[in-house]
Amino acid sequence: MPKPPLPEELQALLAQPHPAVMASLKPDGSPLSVATWYLFEDGRLLVNMDDTRARLEHIRKDPRVSLTVLDSDWYRHVSLQGRVAELEPDTDLRDIDRLSTHYRGEPYPVRDKPRTSAWIEIDRWHGWHV
Amino acid sequence: MPKPPLPEELQALLAQPHPAVMASLKPDGSPLSVATWYLFEDGRLLVNMDDTRARLEHIRKDPRVSLTVLDSDWYRHVSLQGRVAELEPDTDLRDIDRLSTHYRGEPYPVRDKPRTSAWIEIDRWHGWHV
Repeated sequence: MPKPPLPEELQALLAQPHPAVMASLKPDGSPLSVATWYLFEDGRLLVNMDDTRARLEHIRKDPRVSLTVLDSDWYRHVSLQGRVAELEPDTDLRDIDRLSTHYRGEPYPVRDKPRTSAWIEIDRWHGWHV
Repeated sequence: MPKPPLPEELQALLAQPHPAVMASLKPDGSPLSVATWYLFEDGRLLVNMDDTRARLEHIRKDPRVSLTVLDSDWYRHVSLQGRVAELEPDTDLRDIDRLSTHYRGEPYPVRDKPRTSAWIEIDRWHGWHV
């Protein structure tokens, strides 16, 4: 599997609000996949979670993740493997608002639940038809 | 997370050819996600792989997988966790033709590469907006 930096065409794909699925590891080592919003910024991926999600605890224990992004014609897709390098409280819901605006054109509707941002460093990637 | 059997509405969703991403485990225990076709039959999931895929070796070593299926409006999605209970050669490419016909309306175009079918038993599931 190739390593970063990602080719420009792939970066262009990741810049769009495409559907994505992130896999992390449960405490017993089994994989857990879930649909997610992401932002691709400065070569890293930003995802954001409700603080009550078990997924957040899993990532604290083992930061290894994999994210697959599907193009509109999902025959074209890319998988990125890496690690959550940074977890930080999403103060004032700034990051989830950026994600929500990217995907839905408006700030995130739920305002009363604390959230956490995770920055993923990409170690490897594999693209199909990109 | 609820256990099977899946509610009818969820079974109806899984019966359609939706985009899906499957996560498996690499030999070092890290997660690997990749887009996949699937068929939902008799409560199990069928996926199919080219025999040269490293993923096939990974699954032989550790059968634990997770699959996320996205609805057309992918706000609605479901994640299924389970194990590959059965691996079998896809003789005559019968299964990949069934998958290809389900998703693209025609048999699979590549005829000269051996493939393997994997049947996934579902242990747990979680649906969002289903």
